[in-house]
Amino acid sequence: MEKKIQTIGVLGGSGALGSGLSYRLGKAGYQVVIGSRNPGKASEKVNEINQRLKQEKISIESNYLAAEKSDLVILAVPFSNHGVILEEIAPVVQNKIVLDTTVPLVPPKVARVQLPEYGSVAKKTQELLGKEVRVVSAFQNVAASHLDGDDALPGEILVFGNNKDARETIIGLIQEIGMKGWHAGSIDNSVVAESMTSVLIFMNKFYNMEGAGINIVDSSLNH
Amino acid sequence: MEKKIQTIGVLGGSGALGSGLSYRLGKAGYQVVIGSRNPGKASEKVNEINQRLKQEKISIESNYLAAEKSDLVILAVPFSNHGVILEEIAPVVQNKIVLDTTVPLVPPKVARVQLPEYGSVAKKTQELLGKEVRVVSAFQNVAASHLDGDDALPGEILVFGNNKDARETIIGLIQEIGMKGWHAGSIDNSVVAESMTSVLIFMNKFYNMEGAGINIVDSSLNH
Repeated sequence: MEKKIQTIGVLGGSGALGSGLSYRLGKAGYQVVIGSRNPGKASEKVNEINQRLKQEKISIESNYLAAEKSDLVILAVPFSNHGVILEEIAPVVQNKIVLDTTVPLVPPKVARVQLPEYGSVAKKTQELLGKEVRVVSAFQNVAASHLDGDDALPGEILVFGNNKDARETIIGLIQEIGMKGWHAGSIDNSVVAESMTSVLIFMNKFYNMEGAGINIVDSSLNH
Repeated sequence: MEKKIQTIGVLGGSGALGSGLSYRLGKAGYQVVIGSRNPGKASEKVNEINQRLKQEKISIESNYLAAEKSDLVILAVPFSNHGVILEEIAPVVQNKIVLDTTVPLVPPKVARVQLPEYGSVAKKTQELLGKEVRVVSAFQNVAASHLDGDDALPGEILVFGNNKDARETIIGLIQEIGMKGWHAGSIDNSVVAESMTSVLIFMNKFYNMEGAGINIVDSSLNH
């Protein structure tokens, strides 16, 4: 039986995706510890989110302490910092679920897929953190601008991971913040969502869209 | 100005995806030349499609002759034959559009992404056929069982290619057979649709769906 999640660490939580996620998770009732390489600099962002929540749900620490204090750790860091932060937190995330949202974008050609070493970021995360860490991958195809608000969100979320219960936990969390998540297979499949981001960036520009996402459709479904 | 397409070669056209495509293209008014490694064996399939169409829109040839006789060449061959057929048709597809629908599935683990050499099938196709061939990639995420009928099709089609006009031609063709296609970027982005197929296979099994596909959603769209 999975221990009930109460405190969630959002590493890179002062960034665009991380702060939107932190807001929605705080609103859903969780204690959120934002992890930052520069906690002092990000405290303004934290105050702003707490004011919008009208309660103190969000605090801030170093990435290491945020990971240590949390039941569930979310990686929302830039691709360029991903490896360094993994090494830093590895000792304090053993036996936890680590949710990796990292997209392997390499500027300036962000509308073109450029696969990273290991073929996928989340695969690297699972490899580096080891089998005792249940790595789940999700949220790569959600526009950060959409998360940082109260509206219902367009687009659904593909959820990858080698452990079905861990995927189920994240799908529950996704539901609590007002979205739909889908079991999408093992961590090997994460490359799909990681590379889809470049396609969505291309389409947003080509079709002048605001923040395109994907839905799953089937003749057996109601939509 | 693109020469108007009248004759379409569907290599591997007696297979599941190829025969569905051939039927829909014949119904849309095109002459279809199915290419087969064994034209005699596939003639029954051709007769069956022509009977359903109530006219002789479909003929059958070797892959080489089908490619030579056509304005547009569609690859709907098994991944295992892909390389051999490319070499065979390379001389007769220069200056044509080649639409690659090949999915890099490696049995038995078809619900798990296994990226091929070059990172993507369509990238290999563009590399091997050379710059004078406008390679477009599409249709990887359409259930073959859905194509082989007259119903409206769930799911939309991501269309990749380095040449925008060639993508536009294929998007027009997709519309004529009753589906929606999207400009989804350069051939480098084809890995997204090629790997998505394994995710959809996983989801079909996990959720007991019939033939899941994807739609693009955005708050600026009507659906």
